[in-house]
Amino acid sequence: MAPTRAYLDWNASAPLRPAARDAMLHAMENAANPSSVHAEGRAARALIESARKTVAGFVGMPGAGVVFTSGATEAASYLLTPDWRDGRTPLRYSRLYVCDADHPCTRNGGRFLAERVTLLPIDYRGLLDLDALAQALAAHDASEGLPLVACHAANNETGVVQDWAKIGRIVRTANGRFVLDAVQAAGRLPLDLSSVQVDHLILSAHKLGGPKGVGAVVSQSPNVMPVPLVSGGGQEKGFRAGTENVPAIAGFAAALVEAAGEIGRTAEIAALRDRFEAVLLERAPDAVIHGREAVRLPNTTFFTIPTLRAETAQIGFDLAGLALSAGSACSSGKVGPSHVLRAMGVADGGGALRVSIGIATGQRELDAFAKALDRVVANRARAAA
Amino acid sequence: MAPTRAYLDWNASAPLRPAARDAMLHAMENAANPSSVHAEGRAARALIESARKTVAGFVGMPGAGVVFTSGATEAASYLLTPDWRDGRTPLRYSRLYVCDADHPCTRNGGRFLAERVTLLPIDYRGLLDLDALAQALAAHDASEGLPLVACHAANNETGVVQDWAKIGRIVRTANGRFVLDAVQAAGRLPLDLSSVQVDHLILSAHKLGGPKGVGAVVSQSPNVMPVPLVSGGGQEKGFRAGTENVPAIAGFAAALVEAAGEIGRTAEIAALRDRFEAVLLERAPDAVIHGREAVRLPNTTFFTIPTLRAETAQIGFDLAGLALSAGSACSSGKVGPSHVLRAMGVADGGGALRVSIGIATGQRELDAFAKALDRVVANRARAAA
Repeated sequence: MAPTRAYLDWNASAPLRPAARDAMLHAMENAANPSSVHAEGRAARALIESARKTVAGFVGMPGAGVVFTSGATEAASYLLTPDWRDGRTPLRYSRLYVCDADHPCTRNGGRFLAERVTLLPIDYRGLLDLDALAQALAAHDASEGLPLVACHAANNETGVVQDWAKIGRIVRTANGRFVLDAVQAAGRLPLDLSSVQVDHLILSAHKLGGPKGVGAVVSQSPNVMPVPLVSGGGQEKGFRAGTENVPAIAGFAAALVEAAGEIGRTAEIAALRDRFEAVLLERAPDAVIHGREAVRLPNTTFFTIPTLRAETAQIGFDLAGLALSAGSACSSGKVGPSHVLRAMGVADGGGALRVSIGIATGQRELDAFAKALDRVVANRARAAA
Repeated sequence: MAPTRAYLDWNASAPLRPAARDAMLHAMENAANPSSVHAEGRAARALIESARKTVAGFVGMPGAGVVFTSGATEAASYLLTPDWRDGRTPLRYSRLYVCDADHPCTRNGGRFLAERVTLLPIDYRGLLDLDALAQALAAHDASEGLPLVACHAANNETGVVQDWAKIGRIVRTANGRFVLDAVQAAGRLPLDLSSVQVDHLILSAHKLGGPKGVGAVVSQSPNVMPVPLVSGGGQEKGFRAGTENVPAIAGFAAALVEAAGEIGRTAEIAALRDRFEAVLLERAPDAVIHGREAVRLPNTTFFTIPTLRAETAQIGFDLAGLALSAGSACSSGKVGPSHVLRAMGVADGGGALRVSIGIATGQRELDAFAKALDRVVANRARAAA
């Protein structure tokens, strides 16, 4: 990023960590096709297998199966399907229960037919309605197959953190399986899933300072897996065909190692986030910070300033040198009303803005935010006058 | 690759070009999420759109649609499906006709049910049997849907080049659509498809010196496209969801630009390949070079030395510092009999070895090959004595 800019959009994509870049460069120079049996191929294979251990260790699931994908969206399309195998035995999920505030890549149901997808409500705080989950699963017709449940660990827009341990227990009691989208939580919160009833986890590298183009599925039972999405080769034990993206996988692992070392700095980031919010409420006392009644990620502020059009404000911030987001950056530049706020029952007026920070964010960015906010709020006042 | 090694496995994965690496580093530093509307997002978007033009121009299809994927295998799984759309109108292919010598990623039929896939034979030279293709299409039952045909442009193992212009005409006459897997041909042969009846083209970056983890689908009619494989986001006009792998896409484009500039050096590479083959036949006069009766890629030699076990020989070459392949490197280190040779009706005895070279291959590699071959052949003589 240009050094004069203030990058406040870490939830859309975090800056690439130098350690990840270096690991990628090393892999680019030294690794060939990991399916080749010569020394260059074996070097590539070794990088992948080492990264697999890093991923499993990062989430406290050392015995888990790890399948690398091209990112979290592919991982979601891969996992969310009725057709699975337990080893060689076919296994069928007849219905997907997915949180209404999920990222579109899980919320759209992947390979499930639309009529086989049930959206689970959240409450005004942004938290999954656990009673509704339990009731939906109690009403599930198991004669056609098991229930599959998907939910995010932390929301990409609001930062609201779900109680994934409780969700896991409810799903297990109902004999279902649980896919946890940990994309936004990973690297921002401690993520020890050793004693949590999560069956499959989705991770993305570029949200925590790894490269774009790589993600992972982590599975408690390495043999209970969906039929492949990308097929036609024996890579990843047959679960995901195609030459592995070795440099990106190596960069992903390097980013995870660094991120794990920074988990102790969560409070520091939260304190900085609180200062961003103080600055916001000082300049716009009528601003509404969404999801504040729930536990949130330490780095995320999703807010609405009444009478301020978020899209216009975002352009103003951008011109002032600040990169922040109006809603999420999940599709082709399209800015629509937030489905997350709608699910919370919150009228978002002119739209909401998201500030998401990271380990490299500091006083400079805070000052820039304050200064730009002054101008944006002044413009609002002028427009209202 | 280590400078003391001789890397002769370019068809498995070509060394990353410095220009591609530099383009990636630039994108890593300067590009955020291309769906973000701020300056950092727009920089990423600009890189992608520029790369899209480079890809379309590279194959002489400037008006074509280009969808970036995580590689050729994903592109094949994406394209090979019964369910398509022409704009918003559903379009159905009821059967896939695919060349028996295709790479597993197309040969396995993608999303077609196995009973909906017809394998098309090749002749002893490795060339698709055009009469068999025409007959199969004449017998196609169009009442259930159109025929979809897939074939490689150049074979990954033998290097045999198919007559894609003729195949295209036959497919068009039969009212079918043609998917050409140009992964091995791109960058190794001129690939001007402006006047060829190819509907969709598959490309991979890492086979021509671009990064791993990126490929493309190039489509004559940008609106005639399969239902998405990876879904849940509006990226790539809704054809392929997930944050685009911007650095890899930028690296892909840089590699294509360089590869296009080197197409004039094809004869030079072929001459070097011929010297490899002369060295081979000098030391093992009974060696059989497969596909020699057809036009081949300028860089590929696929050969069998009777009584020599390819797997053992490959280890011998590896220990001597040479990376070459026993068959293709398409799955997890598994070396089996070549399905390509079987389709040609060739008994491959102890297995075949592949030498595939590239723009950086020279006298040093040739000398190393000759020296290692001496030892491998001497070992064979000892074993036979």
